[in-house]
Amino acid sequence: MSNLVQKIRAFLIEEIYPLEQDFLRKRFRELLPVLQQKREQAKALDLWTPHLPKECGGQGLSLAEFAPLSEEMGRTPLGHVVFNCQAPDIGNMEILLAHGTDEQKQTYLRPLIRGEIRSCFSMTEPEFPGSNPTWMSTTAIKDGDDYVINGHKWFTSSAEGAAFAIVMAITNPETASPHQRASQIIVPTNAPGFKLVRNISVMGHAGDDYASHAEIVYENCRVPQKNLLGQEGAGFAIAQERLGPGRSHHCMRWIGICERAFDMMCDYAVKRQLAPGKPLATSDIIQAWIAESRAEINAARLMVLHAAQKIDGEGAHAAREEVSLIKFFVANVLQKVLDRAIQVYGGLGVTDDMLLAYWYRQERAARIYDGPDEVHKIAVAKRILRKYGFES
Amino acid sequence: MSNLVQKIRAFLIEEIYPLEQDFLRKRFRELLPVLQQKREQAKALDLWTPHLPKECGGQGLSLAEFAPLSEEMGRTPLGHVVFNCQAPDIGNMEILLAHGTDEQKQTYLRPLIRGEIRSCFSMTEPEFPGSNPTWMSTTAIKDGDDYVINGHKWFTSSAEGAAFAIVMAITNPETASPHQRASQIIVPTNAPGFKLVRNISVMGHAGDDYASHAEIVYENCRVPQKNLLGQEGAGFAIAQERLGPGRSHHCMRWIGICERAFDMMCDYAVKRQLAPGKPLATSDIIQAWIAESRAEINAARLMVLHAAQKIDGEGAHAAREEVSLIKFFVANVLQKVLDRAIQVYGGLGVTDDMLLAYWYRQERAARIYDGPDEVHKIAVAKRILRKYGFES
Amino acid sequence: MSNLVQKIRAFLIEEIYPLEQDFLRKRFRELLPVLQQKREQAKALDLWTPHLPKECGGQGLSLAEFAPLSEEMGRTPLGHVVFNCQAPDIGNMEILLAHGTDEQKQTYLRPLIRGEIRSCFSMTEPEFPGSNPTWMSTTAIKDGDDYVINGHKWFTSSAEGAAFAIVMAITNPETASPHQRASQIIVPTNAPGFKLVRNISVMGHAGDDYASHAEIVYENCRVPQKNLLGQEGAGFAIAQERLGPGRSHHCMRWIGICERAFDMMCDYAVKRQLAPGKPLATSDIIQAWIAESRAEINAARLMVLHAAQKIDGEGAHAAREEVSLIKFFVANVLQKVLDRAIQVYGGLGVTDDMLLAYWYRQERAARIYDGPDEVHKIAVAKRILRKYGFES
Amino acid sequence: MSNLVQKIRAFLIEEIYPLEQDFLRKRFRELLPVLQQKREQAKALDLWTPHLPKECGGQGLSLAEFAPLSEEMGRTPLGHVVFNCQAPDIGNMEILLAHGTDEQKQTYLRPLIRGEIRSCFSMTEPEFPGSNPTWMSTTAIKDGDDYVINGHKWFTSSAEGAAFAIVMAITNPETASPHQRASQIIVPTNAPGFKLVRNISVMGHAGDDYASHAEIVYENCRVPQKNLLGQEGAGFAIAQERLGPGRSHHCMRWIGICERAFDMMCDYAVKRQLAPGKPLATSDIIQAWIAESRAEINAARLMVLHAAQKIDGEGAHAAREEVSLIKFFVANVLQKVLDRAIQVYGGLGVTDDMLLAYWYRQERAARIYDGPDEVHKIAVAKRILRKYGFES
Repeated sequence: MSNLVQKIRAFLIEEIYPLEQDFLRKRFRELLPVLQQKREQAKALDLWTPHLPKECGGQGLSLAEFAPLSEEMGRTPLGHVVFNCQAPDIGNMEILLAHGTDEQKQTYLRPLIRGEIRSCFSMTEPEFPGSNPTWMSTTAIKDGDDYVINGHKWFTSSAEGAAFAIVMAITNPETASPHQRASQIIVPTNAPGFKLVRNISVMGHAGDDYASHAEIVYENCRVPQKNLLGQEGAGFAIAQERLGPGRSHHCMRWIGICERAFDMMCDYAVKRQLAPGKPLATSDIIQAWIAESRAEINAARLMVLHAAQKIDGEGAHAAREEVSLIKFFVANVLQKVLDRAIQVYGGLGVTDDMLLAYWYRQERAARIYDGPDEVHKIAVAKRILRKYGFES
Repeated sequence: MSNLVQKIRAFLIEEIYPLEQDFLRKRFRELLPVLQQKREQAKALDLWTPHLPKECGGQGLSLAEFAPLSEEMGRTPLGHVVFNCQAPDIGNMEILLAHGTDEQKQTYLRPLIRGEIRSCFSMTEPEFPGSNPTWMSTTAIKDGDDYVINGHKWFTSSAEGAAFAIVMAITNPETASPHQRASQIIVPTNAPGFKLVRNISVMGHAGDDYASHAEIVYENCRVPQKNLLGQEGAGFAIAQERLGPGRSHHCMRWIGICERAFDMMCDYAVKRQLAPGKPLATSDIIQAWIAESRAEINAARLMVLHAAQKIDGEGAHAAREEVSLIKFFVANVLQKVLDRAIQVYGGLGVTDDMLLAYWYRQERAARIYDGPDEVHKIAVAKRILRKYGFES
Repeated sequence: MSNLVQKIRAFLIEEIYPLEQDFLRKRFRELLPVLQQKREQAKALDLWTPHLPKECGGQGLSLAEFAPLSEEMGRTPLGHVVFNCQAPDIGNMEILLAHGTDEQKQTYLRPLIRGEIRSCFSMTEPEFPGSNPTWMSTTAIKDGDDYVINGHKWFTSSAEGAAFAIVMAITNPETASPHQRASQIIVPTNAPGFKLVRNISVMGHAGDDYASHAEIVYENCRVPQKNLLGQEGAGFAIAQERLGPGRSHHCMRWIGICERAFDMMCDYAVKRQLAPGKPLATSDIIQAWIAESRAEINAARLMVLHAAQKIDGEGAHAAREEVSLIKFFVANVLQKVLDRAIQVYGGLGVTDDMLLAYWYRQERAARIYDGPDEVHKIAVAKRILRKYGFES
Repeated sequence: MSNLVQKIRAFLIEEIYPLEQDFLRKRFRELLPVLQQKREQAKALDLWTPHLPKECGGQGLSLAEFAPLSEEMGRTPLGHVVFNCQAPDIGNMEILLAHGTDEQKQTYLRPLIRGEIRSCFSMTEPEFPGSNPTWMSTTAIKDGDDYVINGHKWFTSSAEGAAFAIVMAITNPETASPHQRASQIIVPTNAPGFKLVRNISVMGHAGDDYASHAEIVYENCRVPQKNLLGQEGAGFAIAQERLGPGRSHHCMRWIGICERAFDMMCDYAVKRQLAPGKPLATSDIIQAWIAESRAEINAARLMVLHAAQKIDGEGAHAAREEVSLIKFFVANVLQKVLDRAIQVYGGLGVTDDMLLAYWYRQERAARIYDGPDEVHKIAVAKRILRKYGFES
């Protein structure tokens, strides 16, 4: 375990784990003051935005080097937030770093890095399947110096309280290639026509502030054309570039959740008595779950590292098979490990006295968001089958 | 489909399905007035307490005859409540019918049947595994004409707002057989020393009123000895008698949930377009899920009917192998069907715009409550293995 | 257990189980003399062809009544043969009974029922997928009073030593409906142009006589037109009629295999010591396998009975959904139970000292023959989805 | 792919794949002449015993460096034999290299390395579970300068035709620690009292020569005491040392099998038409199998490499958790991939026209030999649980 990971672990155990019960019971907004304080501590310890280049105040880590840090942060629901590595901001930082103009960087990236503002990413539309990313209805039409955006989005996570959204919209509907019709545009959330309809209630909770998923209507929403990110028509390409590392980030976090759940499962198996002197750990059914979980988590970690190394070395496009593989593989490991841990805890496992029930319901979506399992499987298989002569 | 089932289906679709969004979004207490009104309608239609003997106002159905009704009610979360068939009251009615004194019937059973009061069952203790039902710490000690009860219970479902609890407590600690040490005692919730500590927060919600699971402390809680149910020391035997049909009731309800989720899955697969003119239903992955779900639900229903027939014919004790088998088999079918349905719905499936997410999180406990899967498997296997000479 | 089942069980245990080691080690042909003797004994006990109507010398049983007999026979690989209920003859008897002319019955059915000859069914072609039964290349062209058949078939089980084959061939290639192009024709195996190319080596063995799967070339094979079964163009309809009960027969037999493997597994778990005084049966992993197997076998049996009752009451066509469901459901239960039983036996389980390894390799094809799992799942799902508006 | 792997791949495709049909159809003995010729070619190409140190004529590879070679060899059943890397000889070479006296090396190791003789390893006893390796009954008692060995072994693979066996026997029954009672002794197969009872028929075949698993009785079998390997009482320790890399070798080979089966599955999915112009590859069920197989094989390979690196760096003892994890994880991946490949091939998949059926039946034992899945899972879990305070 590297020195940096050790520092992160120590900080989280000391400062953040004690907040978990509050996180489970209170509105997110109520946690903001204490979180702000912890974020300042993290900055003071030079643990802030470690994923960024050194010139941006980070540690200059490759994706593979960041993986163990992100896993460590994943062990607690507030882990990434406290170091300003949380999705969707981490992905937006990457886009702005790579494609932002100087002015965009000054206005949006710098305050984001400093943690003064938050952001969101507005792509998915309720009427269209995420699995067909070129099929969307939101449009951005030029009018004078502006884009006028009309459309309906949902699962725009963390929109409430965000300063700006990066919005995917069709700017070039006539272009031959469906992959070159959309653009990414920065939309301040106070722009006229940006309407946050509701925080969607997910698994029993609408949530609030950072911990929410908004439905948004863009109704003649007007922003200057200089808010375009990269080239016009490059929206899909940039999204793909964002999603590769983005999916890896999720996987790293999930491994952290797995390790925490594994710890909890082992701990309780040893403590909980079935009969005097006979702990749950004596059951070889439970022993088998522990060994299977260990094997699967190890496999997941090795695959994520391998994919991260490929992204580092050859870029996200070259690694898209590896990314799709980890996306569904790790999400399924996560679900299995959480399920076993809950079963070991029995009744206690479904209560909110433990983190397990939170992850169980929040992370059911891990097999759906950023591409359902099936979409990734089909994409991987078609790419492989083409080498065998398949024409799809 | 019998005439009775058709009437129930029509009533539920007409009167109760429209309440589901309120059920998902409001406190249970807020629904009480409209529920009360629907319950009166159900009475007027002679659909009230159909599980009871005719002389108690029911339909005089066997368990196997009741199964299709219960399945139908299971299709909506308020289905059983509106006909006064809901757990835990249905089980308490059975106990009181079989073991109650005339006075107990007058005081507790009659108003329960009329739906004027609710009840709860207080057995599980946080410090002891439910899988070892003879190992508990709650005691009831005779003092004058009373029992004085001390102990700590949890998962006493629906205790909030209940008029009385049936409490398992050790009355005869010195008896040789551990199965004859406990008794069941009726404890009015306004008895001195009955302390509802909290509604346990489960999968994100503490719930309220009927829709809650209480933690209760019995602190020198005093009730008259005439509140004893059946013989002293018969608590475990009565509990077993209650749990056999009780588990069958859960299974029937789960099949109803499965069928509703199956309907929703098929419906959405046909409606949701992956691309223009290409619905989800064209995917043979999804077709496979539908066929597998159909097979598993059919299997579950046949097994539950078979177990119910055995209980009807030979009693709960004779059918305990069949009951254990359906308990874990149907709970796992339920989890698989819900998981597939959610995956078909994608993002929409985890929102509270649908019932799926509610069942997904509420019914994770189906593999735990009334005996975890593993406990039932081990019990079944040991009984079978004894026929092959195993001495355990 | 009915009286008839008891007699069958006693006969098999006494007379046939002792032949199993020879069955595993010798060529089938070497067993013929002793088998002939046992078949005579079965006749003498009035256990011969129990599936047939009484006027044909059987017991006049419905399919659902035959199920427990067939299951009992399935417990040993020679079980069906000794009572003359074995596939493919049982299916051919059914076709000839329903569709044969008097002359065909005299020439082919009577000696088949008496056990004097054997038969085979020649449908599958290596170049075409069995999942698309209307796509075949074998043709039967009228020439004078004859059909001249040309084609290439495989998996014509038990062709070696058979007196005749029932052959599927295109007789009406121009007919609009692809389902009305083929006919079934009786082809004596000594007809000119009937060429048995080889017994296909399957899972390590080509087998011989009854226990074989032939590849056959029909090369200008000539038979009289009176050998046509039923109407010209009715081949597909008759095949469907045959396959419904045929698949049920397989399922019944598989349940017999499951029960025998279950017995063996329990027996060994109790006997085999992991350490002095600690048998395998003390492992709760193995206990879980036993309980899961018990649940799955029970489910399989109830589903098969249910499908058989529907075939009995409404015909094979009405029950095709139920038949497809049991085809894949029971085949998978079979594979799981065999796998667990082998794992309990460890090294001994893969040896030919036990029957398990034989079934493990022979019945891998259970998920393939008479329609692979996927084909049945897709067929079921499409039929269900149409009720929800799907147009496929 | 390294240069060495490329040479091995080319050699195998050119020289060995064409022998596969003979391997499937003939006795192993019949292949010996052509195999001998191919082995000479391999020597000439400097591909002989690449796993050995350079001073022994090998490539001086670490275990992790050997892994891709072994995987490549694993793609064909004769792959390891042709380079003299086959189990059990590879393990025996390792033991003799590490623990053999000069004389033992001269007499047994040198001719083994040159491929002039073969050997076997005689540990497992039919009456005792392999999962409890210290519980055995074979004894070696000193008599003059000799050991006199008595015992009953089975699954002594490749004993037929071997020049010597390494035999595990109790030499020090009184020693306190059960792990220090047994020794390993070299027993020439022509020693008096070495009785090869039979080649055990496994999955339908007794096999012969190298491709066989012998049952052996040691009946007053006499060998000089100088045939002791290492210290007296070190048998168990040496066995553990052998089994760590030995299990890794199996895993590497299994990954080769997986990759070949994966190739075959993709190839056939593209070629086989369900209907004109609609290959199997268009089914997203099959696409999902391909993607899942790809993920699982990748995971397996990464885990095996990781374990091999740990063995290389810290020794087999330090890596025993990793070795146990890959033993069951990779064996299960193997079984799943083979099962899917067979299902894609349908009827053809169970025939001996393909390699799949061979591996399917031969490698069912992968989840059993060198420790059943459950034994490894329990061992891993107990080691992990001890860190959480478990006392087992």
